[in-house]
Amino acid sequence: MNGLLPSDMIDQTDESTICIAFGKRVRKLRKAKGWSQEKLAEFSGIHRNYVSDMERGERNVSLKIIERLAKALDVELSELFLF
Amino acid sequence: MNGLLPSDMIDQTDESTICIAFGKRVRKLRKAKGWSQEKLAEFSGIHRNYVSDMERGERNVSLKIIERLAKALDVELSELFLF
Repeated sequence: MNGLLPSDMIDQTDESTICIAFGKRVRKLRKAKGWSQEKLAEFSGIHRNYVSDMERGERNVSLKIIERLAKALDVELSELFLF
Repeated sequence: MNGLLPSDMIDQTDESTICIAFGKRVRKLRKAKGWSQEKLAEFSGIHRNYVSDMERGERNVSLKIIERLAKALDVELSELFLF
């Protein structure tokens, strides 16, 4: 059970927006450090392909991944959501 | 693929801490509005049991659920991570 109610009850159209916005935010923070996706993958312990998919907004990222990204990028968790 | 590397490469012990901290934060914001878990479930379109599990730190919540919670609680996404 992923916790969501039947999709017809909820407007699904904009649901991917947060994944796209989050991915762009991570990319921005990564680039600000001058890091490649490989380096972020290495420092966060997240698979390289997952980092790439996520930055394109194709992953509905979970808390544990969010925490790893914040630790690797050395930012507060909340900073990952300033968009 | 949930994006994580083999668990032995990563210290798993503190990984649930973020789920617990997030759950407590949501509970605090919910109670500040004087809402029951049922009301949060109704307003966010999330299953009632999921809200209960999540507040106890038993769910590795995803971005789409995080966004619903922020909308329902009428807070910025980043405010859910101020702990």
